[in-house]
Amino acid sequence: MSRRTRSRQEWEVRASTLAKKTTNPIRRIVENLQVEPNPDKELIALSIGDPTTFGNLNPPEQVLQAVRDSVELHTSRGYAPSKGHYEARAAVAKYSAHQGDISPDDVILASGCSHAIELVITVLAESGQNIIIPRPGFSIYQTLALGLGIIIKYYNLLPNKQWKVDLDDLESQIDDDTAAIVVINPSNPCGSVYDKEHLSEILDVASRNRVPIIADEIYEHFIFSGNKYTAISSISKDVPVLSCGGLTKRFLVPGWRMGWVIIHDRNDILGKEIRAGLMNLSMRIVGPSAIIQRALPAILEYTPQSFFDDVLFFIESQAKLAYDELRRAPGLRPIMPEGAMYMMIEIKISYFPEFSNECDFVERLVSEQSVFCLPGQCFDYPNYMRIVLTIPEDKMREACQRIIIFCKEHIVFSEKRKDIDKE
Amino acid sequence: MSRRTRSRQEWEVRASTLAKKTTNPIRRIVENLQVEPNPDKELIALSIGDPTTFGNLNPPEQVLQAVRDSVELHTSRGYAPSKGHYEARAAVAKYSAHQGDISPDDVILASGCSHAIELVITVLAESGQNIIIPRPGFSIYQTLALGLGIIIKYYNLLPNKQWKVDLDDLESQIDDDTAAIVVINPSNPCGSVYDKEHLSEILDVASRNRVPIIADEIYEHFIFSGNKYTAISSISKDVPVLSCGGLTKRFLVPGWRMGWVIIHDRNDILGKEIRAGLMNLSMRIVGPSAIIQRALPAILEYTPQSFFDDVLFFIESQAKLAYDELRRAPGLRPIMPEGAMYMMIEIKISYFPEFSNECDFVERLVSEQSVFCLPGQCFDYPNYMRIVLTIPEDKMREACQRIIIFCKEHIVFSEKRKDIDKE
Ligand SMILES: Cc1ncc(COP(=O)(O)O)c(C=O)c1O
Ligand SMILES: Cc1ncc(COP(=O)(O)O)c(C=O)c1O
Repeated sequence: MSRRTRSRQEWEVRASTLAKKTTNPIRRIVENLQVEPNPDKELIALSIGDPTTFGNLNPPEQVLQAVRDSVELHTSRGYAPSKGHYEARAAVAKYSAHQGDISPDDVILASGCSHAIELVITVLAESGQNIIIPRPGFSIYQTLALGLGIIIKYYNLLPNKQWKVDLDDLESQIDDDTAAIVVINPSNPCGSVYDKEHLSEILDVASRNRVPIIADEIYEHFIFSGNKYTAISSISKDVPVLSCGGLTKRFLVPGWRMGWVIIHDRNDILGKEIRAGLMNLSMRIVGPSAIIQRALPAILEYTPQSFFDDVLFFIESQAKLAYDELRRAPGLRPIMPEGAMYMMIEIKISYFPEFSNECDFVERLVSEQSVFCLPGQCFDYPNYMRIVLTIPEDKMREACQRIIIFCKEHIVFSEKRKDIDKE
Repeated sequence: MSRRTRSRQEWEVRASTLAKKTTNPIRRIVENLQVEPNPDKELIALSIGDPTTFGNLNPPEQVLQAVRDSVELHTSRGYAPSKGHYEARAAVAKYSAHQGDISPDDVILASGCSHAIELVITVLAESGQNIIIPRPGFSIYQTLALGLGIIIKYYNLLPNKQWKVDLDDLESQIDDDTAAIVVINPSNPCGSVYDKEHLSEILDVASRNRVPIIADEIYEHFIFSGNKYTAISSISKDVPVLSCGGLTKRFLVPGWRMGWVIIHDRNDILGKEIRAGLMNLSMRIVGPSAIIQRALPAILEYTPQSFFDDVLFFIESQAKLAYDELRRAPGLRPIMPEGAMYMMIEIKISYFPEFSNECDFVERLVSEQSVFCLPGQCFDYPNYMRIVLTIPEDKMREACQRIIIFCKEHIVFSEKRKDIDKE
């Protein structure tokens, strides 16, 4: 009785568009680099945004104890609701009170901030619509959007104005198909921190054009001394803000995969549809591990302020160290960050005629000095490189020395450059 | 300079198609039921597929110890590769040797079996293509596929032939747009277990029509005495099989969210594209929690066989108990399962003229007897209900008694039925 309606004679199994277009630009660029370190020098990787890599930064005892306790609980083994256990969502709501008045129902737990971002992008944007992200900016937005047919547009940050948003450029990018503006504050890769005034200016643009904001705040509270942290959600009057956060960076546990979305919708613009949509989407993988969910209230309640202060003091010291050192590297211009855990460094590439772009520069820096920095291309920003500030001090010092030597060896000042140009 | 190209005057933020079409049929049906239990009787929920709900089934000490040890490891805190730590993937490969010769590179870790299924569906199927799933069958396939525009088709299982696949029906469903056939073995909700011969017949259909198989084996090894478990991947000669598994059911830890995809591709049909696609997709949320990943080798290696045997002995006893009891319930026909942790019960609805379908039946069963069973509709299978077999023995016994009473109270035998029909 078998009605054969399949004409295929040969096996042919193709990957979907979603699978093919889900790519990680950083990985792609790094894989294409020649990064053979100099065998005589120990490799120093200034490229990895994992603060636990070097073993010098560890979560506090209270956080580990919370998880130990959770493992013993019977209730950390069963299914949690897809959006997360109530107690865990209530804990996030309380911990995030600086963002505004939040109820546990405004919180959806996610498997890391990446998953939180996936939830908010996929609820807001349809195939063919666009989201506008900062340039330079973290590449996860491309990874998550392109496969779904969501288009990425860019607005420029201004390197000479502490990476503030070029507001005219931002506004000019908005069109009828714009589903959201992404604001990463504090920023990866820039380490910039926006003050209240600047955040208000961004909100004005969003409000005028009726575009909701996705606030990527995985680095919230990562603020160096003298600056103050403001969550964009806390000052929005009308613009709906979907904030994405998590334990990843601040609690030094990226591998635990605990993130969250917080819905800010003071004027009830999102209505039931977006909330329901987020709940629906959270059912796809049934939320993050219940072990961490059950530990979350204690983690967020009992981690001492001194832990955060110590980590930040360390990162800020590293930023100052790297900045002071690298200012002395001819042909480089480090830009002092105000927060997060990265620093962007401009490479005045015309001073290095051997290298046609910053990828050449970082490749040779690895092969000669065994220091690996991420090329700006990873953030759609040529002529820069990004370093991480979480590595141990002696390694940072050593890395800076090697970068200085490298620059001195390769820089060509103008007269000589002219000669080269003539050749 | 602001070129305003946005015409929107009012706020209007709509949820995407993906968000709107991601729904959980079980939840939707259950939410629409009137399930107010009888206040005089304690509710017995025979509906929840979480074996930890009643506290009578717990993971073994070795599994908990593996996680305790993992929490202390520095390396359980940092990012793991998206597809999972090598050691964890190697452990899954070894644990799954009954499926065939597996290398760690054939394994991708996922955040629960749901996420594993999401990975395999989204790599194989494009919007507009279809996947063919069993009826009755678990509803996660609808949840994951429909939002992406992937179409669900059904093949029938045969309740009178131990829920074997209607092979002609299966073959007749295949068309040029079929991206995969889903085989759930052992089955939720049927508790059926397919032997080698029947799995070969399914493979023959797939092979003839050049369709890869998604093997949902979250209940692998859940086999009652007298039956033998065969993984479909282990006997496939040419058909590529993507097997989805995890810790969830067998280790009694659904909340931990640890699952995996295993790629079986003996004839190199999938080629690089599907592998690369799965890797790409795994980058979206950067894999499951590293705490469980680091515990995985010990979990899979040290859990004693006696633990699995004890759990299975208990479930099988419950199956026998429920079967023997419910055979005595007039108007019901329980179908003895051969594995997994569920039993399907046919409701001869014409014997219950008060109820127009099985949803009415289960609603009244709750309101009168405080026993809640899932209506067959949840599995696209009217006139049946599903019970779980993991609840404590005394509760199971009590629930069966109440169901028998309920049936006796509501059944109408033929003469009387005729009268009613006349009225
Ligand atoms: C700006 C930004 N957003 C999101 C993420 C993702 O965080 P998670 O590891 O919690 O998924 C990162 C990680 O580096 C990040 O830098
Ligand atoms: C047949 C089947 N597949 C997959 C799943 C999902 O498993 P997990 O909880 O690991 O996501 C379930 C859960 O009940 C199931 O019954």
